[in-house]
Amino acid sequence: MRMQINDVRLWESLMAMAEIGATYGGGSSRLALTPEDAEGRALFIAWCQSLGMEIELDAIGNLFAIYPGQQRSLPPIVMGSHLDTQPKGGRFDGVYGVLAALEVVRTLHDNQIVLNHDLEIAVWMNEEGARFSPAMLGSEVFIEELALDKALSQKDVNGISVAESLAQTKQIGQRAFKREFDSYFELHIEQGPILEALDKEIGIVTGGQAIAWLDVAVKGRAQHAGTTPMRYRQDAMLGTSALLGKIEEYVANIEDALLTVGEIAIPYSSRNTIAGAVNFTLDVRHPETEKVKEMVRNIKHFGESVAADRSLSITMSDVWLSPAIPFDETCVDLVRIATKELGYSHHEMISGAGHDAIHLAKHCPTTMIFIACKDGISHNEAESITERDAANGTNVLLNAVLKRDLG
Amino acid sequence: MRMQINDVRLWESLMAMAEIGATYGGGSSRLALTPEDAEGRALFIAWCQSLGMEIELDAIGNLFAIYPGQQRSLPPIVMGSHLDTQPKGGRFDGVYGVLAALEVVRTLHDNQIVLNHDLEIAVWMNEEGARFSPAMLGSEVFIEELALDKALSQKDVNGISVAESLAQTKQIGQRAFKREFDSYFELHIEQGPILEALDKEIGIVTGGQAIAWLDVAVKGRAQHAGTTPMRYRQDAMLGTSALLGKIEEYVANIEDALLTVGEIAIPYSSRNTIAGAVNFTLDVRHPETEKVKEMVRNIKHFGESVAADRSLSITMSDVWLSPAIPFDETCVDLVRIATKELGYSHHEMISGAGHDAIHLAKHCPTTMIFIACKDGISHNEAESITERDAANGTNVLLNAVLKRDLG
Repeated sequence: MRMQINDVRLWESLMAMAEIGATYGGGSSRLALTPEDAEGRALFIAWCQSLGMEIELDAIGNLFAIYPGQQRSLPPIVMGSHLDTQPKGGRFDGVYGVLAALEVVRTLHDNQIVLNHDLEIAVWMNEEGARFSPAMLGSEVFIEELALDKALSQKDVNGISVAESLAQTKQIGQRAFKREFDSYFELHIEQGPILEALDKEIGIVTGGQAIAWLDVAVKGRAQHAGTTPMRYRQDAMLGTSALLGKIEEYVANIEDALLTVGEIAIPYSSRNTIAGAVNFTLDVRHPETEKVKEMVRNIKHFGESVAADRSLSITMSDVWLSPAIPFDETCVDLVRIATKELGYSHHEMISGAGHDAIHLAKHCPTTMIFIACKDGISHNEAESITERDAANGTNVLLNAVLKRDLG
Repeated sequence: MRMQINDVRLWESLMAMAEIGATYGGGSSRLALTPEDAEGRALFIAWCQSLGMEIELDAIGNLFAIYPGQQRSLPPIVMGSHLDTQPKGGRFDGVYGVLAALEVVRTLHDNQIVLNHDLEIAVWMNEEGARFSPAMLGSEVFIEELALDKALSQKDVNGISVAESLAQTKQIGQRAFKREFDSYFELHIEQGPILEALDKEIGIVTGGQAIAWLDVAVKGRAQHAGTTPMRYRQDAMLGTSALLGKIEEYVANIEDALLTVGEIAIPYSSRNTIAGAVNFTLDVRHPETEKVKEMVRNIKHFGESVAADRSLSITMSDVWLSPAIPFDETCVDLVRIATKELGYSHHEMISGAGHDAIHLAKHCPTTMIFIACKDGISHNEAESITERDAANGTNVLLNAVLKRDLG
């Protein structure tokens, strides 16, 4: 029989960690580099040290626990995620990836197995972005896409900087940034509804999707709601709804495309004044970068067409374009094979949300593993997973890492 | 030749009044019961007294100037509008109706004509609603639909009450509310684009339209913009745009119907979160009350249909229903005949905006006369009319009043 992790120990560790910064609503509150975050890390470190693991930190507070291999000159196989949470976060977002990695090491330790490679657990700093901006700050500094100085000077809402918080919580070390990794595996809750809806145990994650953010400004004419016949109006709000209708219909016909209007406002609005202007945001996503670019081009054409039809001015500004990040085919295949050998039902999917793995994929062979979360709810105290899924995901991680170590 | 008003004198009076509270942008600022408003009234009173007119006030600060008739026991024929303005108002909204009425009396005085009826000019208090709420406060108290005590206790943004302001500006008198009027004629700028677009000199106003206000609450589910496939979404914002598309299409096919979405908000909005809720307002208008009620019923059906199609909850709350106010057929006909006899081009229309005449119509035979304003712009320093239109409207008012006096 294939090696299996200890599902009870895994669950007990998850529940123990959740007690640190526990919220009344059943979640956890451990904002990055707060005393609660430091306490969570201290518990994790104690668990690791009891397995003989080495503990290291880097200058931005990323934490690494190393289970030494037989050939220490080889680059490490790294598993990881984060222990920081949203202000009213759940018990599993990030935490599950870290404690499942710990359970992998515990299982190896139980079985007195030492890998060829060092096996590391990475705990990335400020993944949530709930205290310091941007999200995934620690892993972005690690891959040297965000300058350390800039990251250290970021401040929270109380004006306290990352540098001050690192010093206060003693999370500063000297481990080199961008040092070589053999590979990076991140196990995470899906944070979406797909696996649950399909009743699948494991999500085999093939990459991160491309994202475009647009700001749209629709300008018409503010006029009196009672004295202006419909045919004389330049109504920015009805123009907006017409435009959104066209865009929604277009996007609905593109498989795997996503469209979100998260923010909208009518400046100087009044109940009996025709909207002279509407500002709204568009978030456009698709697994392929070229498809997102094509969607943005077509959405802009819809804007021009609605503007011409309705005597409006519509400008769409590009705010951000994040290209798709394909994960490493070999690593994805190791997860696929491990899942099949373990007999778990599975679904191939992309990662819709941002994760540290999206940064790591630019640095080393990387992939992710998903398990279902109830109703797709995340960033919420109500975040929920089953003990069975938690164990299954960890078994996949264990077996994928074992296969990777054999090369 | 028919009697004609003095168009130069009329225009000079308009320009002189505009100097009181003049704004840098070329408009006027005379908020109700401010020193500027009192100064404007004082100038008007001085002009009236030079014609031998009697001056009266009532307890809510409505001002009446009376040109005595031969049979003083007859109820007065009343012309009027208001002298108060928006904070950055134009030179004509309200002011034109009052000073055109003054020009009518001046013309009669020039020609040594005394009518059978007293001819009164009413200057209604706080028509704009820009300082005290509600708008058209003075005329509503006059017709005893708003209690005097309640009106007196209304406060401006600085906490100063109507009662205090009336005392400070000495605008309190004892004239009886709801005393009998033979008829009421209000000349006003259109505040809309119709007459200009049709190139017509006079708007023959047959009544005020019905208005319904609705508050709409669309509830869906706030989810992650990156992890939730389109088919699993309950997107309140795309639901809103779909609903507005249906409502707009429906309203576009109803002649003279108006639809305005003046306010919209996504509570707790974020660029990368699917809208869990959207709140917006609807302003629905039509010349017939029954048609407005039918539109509201159908709009609610569209809400139910979109809610069902998209797994949303959509509630539409009735905020206000103001029935259509038809003007007096005899008075409308007097305006129609006067306009035709004077040879002016004309258009029959309803009043889209609120006016004191809408209140007076519940009290006595009432009608309004409109002239064009440039680009339909009002409540704005850029408000603009031509001297020719100003004179034409005043000639219609004069001749309609002369006909009314003959009975």
